[in-house]
Amino acid sequence: MPYELHYWPGLQGRGEFIRLALEDAAVPYRDVARAPSDQGGGPDALVERLQTGAPHPSFAPPFLVVDGQEVLGQTANVLLFLGQRHGLAPSDDVGRLWVNQLQLTIADLVAEAHDTHHPVDLDAYYADQKPEAARRAAAFRTARIPKFLGYFERVLENSAWLAGSACTYADLSLFQAVVGLRYAFPAAMARCEAKTPRVTALTARVAARPRVAAYLASERRVPFNETGIFRRYPELDG
Amino acid sequence: MPYELHYWPGLQGRGEFIRLALEDAAVPYRDVARAPSDQGGGPDALVERLQTGAPHPSFAPPFLVVDGQEVLGQTANVLLFLGQRHGLAPSDDVGRLWVNQLQLTIADLVAEAHDTHHPVDLDAYYADQKPEAARRAAAFRTARIPKFLGYFERVLENSAWLAGSACTYADLSLFQAVVGLRYAFPAAMARCEAKTPRVTALTARVAARPRVAAYLASERRVPFNETGIFRRYPELDG
Repeated sequence: MPYELHYWPGLQGRGEFIRLALEDAAVPYRDVARAPSDQGGGPDALVERLQTGAPHPSFAPPFLVVDGQEVLGQTANVLLFLGQRHGLAPSDDVGRLWVNQLQLTIADLVAEAHDTHHPVDLDAYYADQKPEAARRAAAFRTARIPKFLGYFERVLENSAWLAGSACTYADLSLFQAVVGLRYAFPAAMARCEAKTPRVTALTARVAARPRVAAYLASERRVPFNETGIFRRYPELDG
Repeated sequence: MPYELHYWPGLQGRGEFIRLALEDAAVPYRDVARAPSDQGGGPDALVERLQTGAPHPSFAPPFLVVDGQEVLGQTANVLLFLGQRHGLAPSDDVGRLWVNQLQLTIADLVAEAHDTHHPVDLDAYYADQKPEAARRAAAFRTARIPKFLGYFERVLENSAWLAGSACTYADLSLFQAVVGLRYAFPAAMARCEAKTPRVTALTARVAARPRVAAYLASERRVPFNETGIFRRYPELDG
């Protein structure tokens, strides 16, 4: 199999943005850390590959091993590669850079979503930073989600998909961000999405793509849970 | 002039990573918001261009207007474009993706540096989140800076520059991150850099590049200050 995806098992996390692209493009891949350890899988296989990442080591998962050799890290970078190779990005440079720009903006939103439950110590538990998380989440709900969704709504004013007439990996990623935010902040998102109907419609359109729908209904889709980026802590919604 | 850089005046911020690439490549550019308002510059010109960003609006500065038409946003995306066009990235796809990956990892470090003084509310003042900032900064100093610098040290084990035998925009960006961290966290960085001599040497090598050195000595280089990403709040160092 040409692609090995390395990401922590048990959570969607940043690996999910890559999974969605691979699934929508119908590209076979091995999800290494979720494979049985007696078949060379498991988190130990991920850690070993992370530590022997030469010549291009990654700072952290997710990373993609291509043809057993080339190692690509950083979610947006992996998607830049996959999008060009598998028809999930425009074929011209201007279009490709625009999709990359959109992806990086989605990545900023995702990082801020993560920081709502880890505002002051990335290596400590949420339970150890709950007052700080409450404050960060309030600002995220009232100022940042509306700003980000409003931006994407504006981008969608003139086209069916973010980058024109065809779905790209940025659309898949925006879908993932929106459904993740709905999981984590259902009340806040209901309010925010009332003002961004195009974002809501895009999310539905991605979910209805046959291969995405099949993937979401499969066991390959890890359910949202409280170890991922998007966590449902009711005290952080409102 | 083919390039117009749009970034907030008075601070280095994320615009500085783009300035360093333009300066090192000896590419003329107009720094719009720092130009006089009676010559079409000033922050109002930036805001106007940000609001009329069609067909490719940016979420936030910095963004680059190319030939008066194409608008490119997101720092790493602008650098991907400039690196390929002006010899600050490898000419092959594998090399270009590797430099992009490095840049995105530097961007993660820079975002975490920013969050040390804005851990719980991006839109509030530092003075309004000092206890939270103290906690975030402590974790950043003791765990995150060593982890990031250790990663780049490892990348530099086998090559003079991050991506091989030639300087790329990722090297310029790592320089900027290191000198910024030294400004903000002098005590912590002295300890951390004692374990990462290759990172320190790379930083010196970038600073000695003739066009970088000339830029750093010029008035075009905004001094570090407490409105940028890297801020010297002595209570956050230690």
